Amino acid sequence: MIHATLLVSCQDRTGLVAALSDFVFRNGGNIIDLDQHSEADSATFFMRLVFDLQGFRLDREGIKAAVGVLAQSHQLTTHLSFSDHRPKVAVFCSKMPHCLYDLLLCHSLGELQGEIVALVSNHEYLRGVAEHFRLPFHHVPMGPDKAATEATQDRLLADLGVEMVVLARYMQILSPAFVERWAGRIINIHHSFLPAFVGAKPYHQARERGVKLIGATAHYVTSELDQGPIIEQDVTRVSHRDDVESLVRKGRELERVVLTRAVKLHLERRVLINGSRTVVFG
Amino acid sequence: MIHATLLVSCQDRTGLVAALSDFVFRNGGNIIDLDQHSEADSATFFMRLVFDLQGFRLDREGIKAAVGVLAQSHQLTTHLSFSDHRPKVAVFCSKMPHCLYDLLLCHSLGELQGEIVALVSNHEYLRGVAEHFRLPFHHVPMGPDKAATEATQDRLLADLGVEMVVLARYMQILSPAFVERWAGRIINIHHSFLPAFVGAKPYHQARERGVKLIGATAHYVTSELDQGPIIEQDVTRVSHRDDVESLVRKGRELERVVLTRAVKLHLERRVLINGSRTVVFG
Amino acid sequence: MIHATLLVSCQDRTGLVAALSDFVFRNGGNIIDLDQHSEADSATFFMRLVFDLQGFRLDREGIKAAVGVLAQSHQLTTHLSFSDHRPKVAVFCSKMPHCLYDLLLCHSLGELQGEIVALVSNHEYLRGVAEHFRLPFHHVPMGPDKAATEATQDRLLADLGVEMVVLARYMQILSPAFVERWAGRIINIHHSFLPAFVGAKPYHQARERGVKLIGATAHYVTSELDQGPIIEQDVTRVSHRDDVESLVRKGRELERVVLTRAVKLHLERRVLINGSRTVVFG
Amino acid sequence: MIHATLLVSCQDRTGLVAALSDFVFRNGGNIIDLDQHSEADSATFFMRLVFDLQGFRLDREGIKAAVGVLAQSHQLTTHLSFSDHRPKVAVFCSKMPHCLYDLLLCHSLGELQGEIVALVSNHEYLRGVAEHFRLPFHHVPMGPDKAATEATQDRLLADLGVEMVVLARYMQILSPAFVERWAGRIINIHHSFLPAFVGAKPYHQARERGVKLIGATAHYVTSELDQGPIIEQDVTRVSHRDDVESLVRKGRELERVVLTRAVKLHLERRVLINGSRTVVFG
Repeated sequence: MIHATLLVSCQDRTGLVAALSDFVFRNGGNIIDLDQHSEADSATFFMRLVFDLQGFRLDREGIKAAVGVLAQSHQLTTHLSFSDHRPKVAVFCSKMPHCLYDLLLCHSLGELQGEIVALVSNHEYLRGVAEHFRLPFHHVPMGPDKAATEATQDRLLADLGVEMVVLARYMQILSPAFVERWAGRIINIHHSFLPAFVGAKPYHQARERGVKLIGATAHYVTSELDQGPIIEQDVTRVSHRDDVESLVRKGRELERVVLTRAVKLHLERRVLINGSRTVVFG
Repeated sequence: MIHATLLVSCQDRTGLVAALSDFVFRNGGNIIDLDQHSEADSATFFMRLVFDLQGFRLDREGIKAAVGVLAQSHQLTTHLSFSDHRPKVAVFCSKMPHCLYDLLLCHSLGELQGEIVALVSNHEYLRGVAEHFRLPFHHVPMGPDKAATEATQDRLLADLGVEMVVLARYMQILSPAFVERWAGRIINIHHSFLPAFVGAKPYHQARERGVKLIGATAHYVTSELDQGPIIEQDVTRVSHRDDVESLVRKGRELERVVLTRAVKLHLERRVLINGSRTVVFG
Repeated sequence: MIHATLLVSCQDRTGLVAALSDFVFRNGGNIIDLDQHSEADSATFFMRLVFDLQGFRLDREGIKAAVGVLAQSHQLTTHLSFSDHRPKVAVFCSKMPHCLYDLLLCHSLGELQGEIVALVSNHEYLRGVAEHFRLPFHHVPMGPDKAATEATQDRLLADLGVEMVVLARYMQILSPAFVERWAGRIINIHHSFLPAFVGAKPYHQARERGVKLIGATAHYVTSELDQGPIIEQDVTRVSHRDDVESLVRKGRELERVVLTRAVKLHLERRVLINGSRTVVFG
Repeated sequence: MIHATLLVSCQDRTGLVAALSDFVFRNGGNIIDLDQHSEADSATFFMRLVFDLQGFRLDREGIKAAVGVLAQSHQLTTHLSFSDHRPKVAVFCSKMPHCLYDLLLCHSLGELQGEIVALVSNHEYLRGVAEHFRLPFHHVPMGPDKAATEATQDRLLADLGVEMVVLARYMQILSPAFVERWAGRIINIHHSFLPAFVGAKPYHQARERGVKLIGATAHYVTSELDQGPIIEQDVTRVSHRDDVESLVRKGRELERVVLTRAVKLHLERRVLINGSRTVVFG
């Protein structure tokens, strides 16, 4: 059963739900899932509408056109996708394998609504993991010229038709230009409960501060380090017995779980960006 | 700003969201919150629709009538409420004060969308708590004739116009007839993570079994002990160091938090009963 | 059954456990609980030793003297207490009652290993809570001269023999001198997951940043705002649906639970301060 | 730095800590970690003592002999191990790879204090996973004669010198005789929060009951199904939106985390069995 997912955000006003649900109904569709949020202080409206394509009177091109008309007449920002389209995903990694394994395992179990088509790394280190999961591995070493390296990465992503990038403990800072090109489509895992412990060595910082919980945060990447909209966070309990090495181990468990959850949410089109925040329809 | 909340459940079919949101729109209302769930296996539709009354073309009687017509034409089960109606709540308790204090504190802080109008107890023990919070306390001792005692309770609840009963560690089993009369409007807190440790002395059972987490469960009361639809649960970590007394103390923290959350959810009309389960719109 | 609790911290070296446990054994005592931690990087040793006084060959003065000798010969920092001594506790509060109720409820249930002897407030607002729990309430208004106000507070605490101060959402900054006098004996609740959202209005900050979990932190007060050693933290899940008011409500649930836990841990002598961190023997 | 870990359980009496810590001290050792628990109701004493072998006056044979003497004179049940001995582990699996990957990933990252030497499966399905991690894979198909199959497994484990067996979603019931031979050395993951949902299809049961949290439980295997001593449990939040398939996915995340934690705890010799429960020194 194929369905369409329509994400909408706009200035809040009356009649939006009626107009959009009526569009589905008039064309003979069935709403499978509808989630809506009106943010009072900014008067912004967010909606996720999933409807069945079976028996729908419009074909895909017709739906696109109709959504375009609706968008124009109601001044909506929309994103339309169909469930048999599985977005192509590239995973960037360096040497740490734990997040990569978790993503690839979930991918192989059919848990991701997308297709991982490439692993991209600045090291050869994790090639074997790619081969094991029968995925192409692209070694793009860091040269002295970062712009050239990123141009290589960009060409690769373009050639493959990649629509989403996941940074699975990728240990390089991307340029603002690269980040800008992938705005809203690139997710990173930071190994702390942001905004605590921004930047390098968060587990050392956590140990130093003596916190009783450590966390991990998956967020969209923006040009400001560790400041992007947060998609998912989780924490785990630690104690005085945990030295930095032990925090790193406990943190690995969190990092992989949190990153994979965020990637799933994004691919299921459950996340809308609201400035520096997100709306996540669970 | 007064709003209306409409709960709907029915056999799933196309056009339900459109019909209901259109009803709001046609009458000049604004949808503040809409949450919807279609349960695939039972083909059941659930919706919670909140809309603004300001500028609405129908008055309350008109809304009731119109909802009645919609209900009949679409075969809906509906529940309509207005935000300036604060349902009257009775809290039943015995000797343990912790859940009672939490409810009354949240009540006094304005966190409950209802009015606690009576404390009912089979003991005098907690009268002082009622007095402190300036609430009427009704001592209804357990006599030899349970039916007579419950008749007294029923008259009291009827006289006060009570619409919801909360069992805050009330240590009496209610008769099936009483439970039946309050079906869907009476919430209990059980001091275990149901369905584990049904019945008496769950902390003793937990200690015996050596679990590493203990829980608490708030549920609607049905005539089968501890089998009613679950509204909210939570757990906390325990260890071999926790003897029964320590489990009881840790459990108290959970019980009060979980019961108060469930009462809030019910009063905000976020809970729909789905057979032996619930739909909770968060 | 009365027992003694000995807290020890010192430079780590061999024979410490043997020397201390042998001291108990030689005098006919039984070790009820022993927890020990050696921090590798700073080579510091921490221990909590609880032993039964029944049949012990030394009386309390004898124990104190013997511990003094041990401390000198092994260069230990020690803290000795007896379970029938219940430290006197003062709770500082302002207008928000939730943490206060939780502490006083647990106190009345016998869950605290100490005696709350006074509520101190810069407002009259919570006097009724004190009276309900039959505890003295001291209104110490903030005058133009903070030093004078604190001198009044200090005299009060001294007159009452207070050994521990709890800040239950007390909305005044204490002077460094006051904090210094109560170092290691004054606990505050901060309504965020420190070190995130230091300072004022943490729920506003949390809303602004779009975090998916909010937290609360109980810590010893030091002269640097929100920088003291952390005793306990916890978090709860939030979403885009939670506006600031909703975060405040969810946060209240956390704050009272976390502060009460920390006070219990302190009074059970389970907490040792290790510079800017704590060792908490659970 | 090599250290020795001594686990002790016995009837509680005075002088046990002193005798054991004195033994370490007299022989020039340094206690790195000591954790102790006295269970009041059963008067049982449990201890985990870790000491440094550097400069210790006895060699390993000497330590073993001395521990034997101590055990006899104080009637202790003891377990002695040295940190450079890495117990050999066999992982039993069937077709589900998620727990297996997590264990092998942590193994390859050096997080386990043991050596996985074999994967044993009743299917060929996961051979590729073994090969990827360069571990031997043994296909032992289920024949009509269970005793014969288990004899084959036993010979294999004996030949390899296996000391611990992990059931990573192994979908066969082991005979009481097999379980008996591996008592206290065989860990299973059950996909529910035991004792809720014992037996088959726990996610179906969870869905049916409408719980708001699902769990996973790692426990030692005993001849009674799902009744063995619990080592570790955890839960995750679910809602009415989660159908059985969704519960299965969320559960997979829990299962792998909980099983790996339990295996780590066992291999670090942090777990002592106490009848139908465990003592876990964190």
